[in-house]
Amino acid sequence: MTAADPDLLPYEMGLEPGLEPGFDVPALPGASEDEIETPALVVDLDAMEANLRAMAERNAAAGVKLRAHAKSHRSPELALEQIRIGGAIGVCCQKIAEAEAMVRGGVRDVFVTNEIVDPRKMARAARLARQARVIVMCDDARVLADWSAAAISHDVTLEMAVEIDCGTHLCGVDPGEPAADLAARVAATPGLRFAGLQAYHGAAQHIRDADERRAAIEAAADAVRLTLTALEARGLPCPMVGGAGTGSWEFEAASGVWTEMQCGSYLFMDADYQRVAAAEGQGLGAFANSLFLMATVISKRPGRAVCDAGLKVTSLESGPPRIEGVPGARVIGCSDEHGRIEDPEDRLDVGDRVRLIPGHCDPTVNLHAWIVGLRRGRVERLIRVAARGRSL
Amino acid sequence: MTAADPDLLPYEMGLEPGLEPGFDVPALPGASEDEIETPALVVDLDAMEANLRAMAERNAAAGVKLRAHAKSHRSPELALEQIRIGGAIGVCCQKIAEAEAMVRGGVRDVFVTNEIVDPRKMARAARLARQARVIVMCDDARVLADWSAAAISHDVTLEMAVEIDCGTHLCGVDPGEPAADLAARVAATPGLRFAGLQAYHGAAQHIRDADERRAAIEAAADAVRLTLTALEARGLPCPMVGGAGTGSWEFEAASGVWTEMQCGSYLFMDADYQRVAAAEGQGLGAFANSLFLMATVISKRPGRAVCDAGLKVTSLESGPPRIEGVPGARVIGCSDEHGRIEDPEDRLDVGDRVRLIPGHCDPTVNLHAWIVGLRRGRVERLIRVAARGRSL
Repeated sequence: MTAADPDLLPYEMGLEPGLEPGFDVPALPGASEDEIETPALVVDLDAMEANLRAMAERNAAAGVKLRAHAKSHRSPELALEQIRIGGAIGVCCQKIAEAEAMVRGGVRDVFVTNEIVDPRKMARAARLARQARVIVMCDDARVLADWSAAAISHDVTLEMAVEIDCGTHLCGVDPGEPAADLAARVAATPGLRFAGLQAYHGAAQHIRDADERRAAIEAAADAVRLTLTALEARGLPCPMVGGAGTGSWEFEAASGVWTEMQCGSYLFMDADYQRVAAAEGQGLGAFANSLFLMATVISKRPGRAVCDAGLKVTSLESGPPRIEGVPGARVIGCSDEHGRIEDPEDRLDVGDRVRLIPGHCDPTVNLHAWIVGLRRGRVERLIRVAARGRSL
Repeated sequence: MTAADPDLLPYEMGLEPGLEPGFDVPALPGASEDEIETPALVVDLDAMEANLRAMAERNAAAGVKLRAHAKSHRSPELALEQIRIGGAIGVCCQKIAEAEAMVRGGVRDVFVTNEIVDPRKMARAARLARQARVIVMCDDARVLADWSAAAISHDVTLEMAVEIDCGTHLCGVDPGEPAADLAARVAATPGLRFAGLQAYHGAAQHIRDADERRAAIEAAADAVRLTLTALEARGLPCPMVGGAGTGSWEFEAASGVWTEMQCGSYLFMDADYQRVAAAEGQGLGAFANSLFLMATVISKRPGRAVCDAGLKVTSLESGPPRIEGVPGARVIGCSDEHGRIEDPEDRLDVGDRVRLIPGHCDPTVNLHAWIVGLRRGRVERLIRVAARGRSL
């Protein structure tokens, strides 16, 4: 009774009814690595758990809290592990539907680190705040009346952070006086409570040079300090300063201004973060790649091969996936369901299985309903990406 | 009882239990366009149906069959419309899980236009062939023994096409003698029947210049003719020549060598095909863009805006989405959940809704569980992307 037997019906395999191996899931618990149907997203559980522990230890040493970013995995199951064994106080989400999925899955402390401007979504956030701690965010005073109405009509007080633009120039109000003005408006709005500052420098995460990355975070820290001074002048306490990602985390943690680290990718890592780590020699070395895309070679010609992993199973916007352990081989592009491999030494042949490291973990995980949890060559469990596609 | 009322429970809204507006679906049937929660994938039903009819008429005029490619929509519902009102004889799929979803949804004629090399997937194909007409494909004689075993053990005769490399240099055997050799091997294998040739020139689809595109297809037609001659010399009838995509279809249809057109994108079109169409002045003009990503501006600063559609709802590998109807505005990039918009004339403000045209429709649709079917400003129905994520 293994995943390799194609003629067993789902209910014969001990899986919940309606989940069919091959059609729905790449493998069953107990299967060997070779029995995983491809293309499949696979996490090495030992490596992932080592990443969890490494981040917990480093945050404890730095005296900062971890609020892990669930957008990387979109899985309540992994969020609960980040809390249970990874030292996290709760999670961040980017979307209210993602936060709803986390709360349904048992998470009790969620910060939606994104602007919400639709009154219907505000009502959903207010409803969610009746079941869990929910922090929301804004960068514009014009949305406060709708937020207030949502909080009041659901009989909750919503914790609201103010986002400052600390260098990425995406969302966020200017640091200093403008941010303090907005915080004062939040504090004065019925139904809302000022929760602190969000200061995430997304653009800094993938800067290759560690010194440049450090300099970007130092400038962001100055922006936060300027804002903290302006808040203090108004007598407004700032209970939290959130931000940081896997790429820059060590600098925010050491700065003394951030209180909550929002790293997500540290759990899995990816080819782009490996390039960041490689560029600086050491740095991100605390975190190992734990996430792989298992693929199979389906066509072979001299000098090249094609595998069954294309852009419907791996996100391409940060470059193609990297192939592991095949000398000379390189993924040079993907179409919908094909990965095109340069194989100058003709190491690959039809039917061979390859491990690919996705270019960017967050959008890649979002393409999968399940992550296969592998430990020492054996499928231990299937991890459900319950918030996959939940961007509403 | 509209989508705008956030406090109704799902079962109060007449939707199937477990589907919650906002959390699961962007809108309910009957909602107005403004009531659709964003980011949402929306199809203009009038435009889509006009595309369906235009393709049906043109194929009829050219005397070729249409076997629409379901990888574009991954929705059995739309596949059935392609068959019912769009003149298709059946569909193509790229993956066996996609084909299984199509057959479960009622489609009875499926060609899996991709190499399958895993015996478990072969067994699934053979099982599927007991319920529907299933055509499979190969480019390597070494897989035939496994295919034969799968067919025999499931007591079916599998129709198998031979893929030739007609210029894309991805999968496919060389045209002419090597292809005819493989076809003869297929024909001689117990449990298999030679179904014809697959000659899809994927790389030609997006060539900007119409004359160059035509030349690429003429070269592909020569490759097919060479192979047909070699088959004839062996006395092997070739019941089908499949290929063509939306970009090059007119040339394959006119060639006299292809018998089945495998267009998919014509249903929706996208920003990249619009660029192909624009580059040649006329050409693809028979098909209008019917697919939009509805998004909302969530943050605004002078000269720029941010909307709530990022790379988790629109595929970026063919360039960022195009924004419609906002003078001067341009999407210059996306992060996970943000679209970054250059807005030099400051036409946009927080809360404004924008329509984006995805860069590439196939992988974008794969990011969504539902497509909102809109007709003249009103949600007519929700179209389920039942095979979303089914790449196994």
